[in-house]
Amino acid sequence: MVNSSQKEPRIRILDAAVSLFARKGFDAVGVRELAGAADVNISMISYYFGGKVGVLKAIISEFRDQYHKMIEQASDESSSPEEYLRALVCSMVDFARTNTDLSMIAFDSLPLRIPEIEDLRAEMMPELLGKADGLIKAFGLDPNDAVQMSIVGPALFTIVATHLRLKRSQERTFNTEFDDAFYERYAETLADLFLYGVAGTRAKTEGERRH
Amino acid sequence: MVNSSQKEPRIRILDAAVSLFARKGFDAVGVRELAGAADVNISMISYYFGGKVGVLKAIISEFRDQYHKMIEQASDESSSPEEYLRALVCSMVDFARTNTDLSMIAFDSLPLRIPEIEDLRAEMMPELLGKADGLIKAFGLDPNDAVQMSIVGPALFTIVATHLRLKRSQERTFNTEFDDAFYERYAETLADLFLYGVAGTRAKTEGERRH
Repeated sequence: MVNSSQKEPRIRILDAAVSLFARKGFDAVGVRELAGAADVNISMISYYFGGKVGVLKAIISEFRDQYHKMIEQASDESSSPEEYLRALVCSMVDFARTNTDLSMIAFDSLPLRIPEIEDLRAEMMPELLGKADGLIKAFGLDPNDAVQMSIVGPALFTIVATHLRLKRSQERTFNTEFDDAFYERYAETLADLFLYGVAGTRAKTEGERRH
Repeated sequence: MVNSSQKEPRIRILDAAVSLFARKGFDAVGVRELAGAADVNISMISYYFGGKVGVLKAIISEFRDQYHKMIEQASDESSSPEEYLRALVCSMVDFARTNTDLSMIAFDSLPLRIPEIEDLRAEMMPELLGKADGLIKAFGLDPNDAVQMSIVGPALFTIVATHLRLKRSQERTFNTEFDDAFYERYAETLADLFLYGVAGTRAKTEGERRH
């Protein structure tokens, strides 16, 4: 690992913020605390990011870039919708395990009522839904159905992100450690539930349309 | 509405905390701020709750009581597992709409690493899973399967709680207002996805066992 004081200040601020925001929540971290953890002068935060909200924006944008890259990589033109969905769920679970702090911050920032962050989210949501569009149609769901989309759209990310939060309590409840074998079955089971759920819902909707 | 200064201090503290914690997050609310919003002397918080963590514990316990009551009420001995699940999802959606702040605090407290809160959560999780036990067996899933339980157990609450967080952005994205008609279809669609998902997963597991 590179000694943190050898990295440039901008990166040191981001690294420190990712760790602090994930652990304590955005609102609970002060600019002074962040500067201290990053080992920079407090003015550097304004200089590079315009303030604490700017740091959060940079982190969420980083999450967006990484997440899009992950979605692209799971896609393979030769694969069926089911194969693609299964590959996607595996990648999502891997992503959450590898980028736990980043995922937590993106998830935890959802309720924040900060105009700049709400605007960024309003930008990201149609993008992510757009990426899911082909998949949604392939499964016979309607991308213009606000009810179906509001559940199906964020369901997978939500379940995986909440799993990260519940992990500690669940390891205690089930008296088991969540290892690679656990996550292999986890991704498979989540994909199963999703695929069977969507297939059944589609069949029911089609049946209703016919009557 | 009763004038807030006529209520007893303990209730005033709880009411103010529910509103502040839901809006800003537990970590971001100071004891002084809480005392100011509740219009009590700061020492009252220690007197009644032993401190800010004690207030959070009281709120989560209140959530637990209300949530259990809601689960009990959805249950009806004469109903089939499917009917029970559908009634439960409707009640969960109603509960989240009526007790939004309480639900958000319970959900947002999941990542907190405060021993007293982690202990309370460790107590609540087997309780809630215990309530779901009959239902889980009725659907042919195995309550001892940590993978299935870690997904299926919290999935419904998670999806509904995250919906509350995404509500503002989604109303903007879909350019629609989420009204009673929306939530009626929302509960039905969520129950459909869940029921078909579980039925398919069970059939697959049984098929694998036979081979």
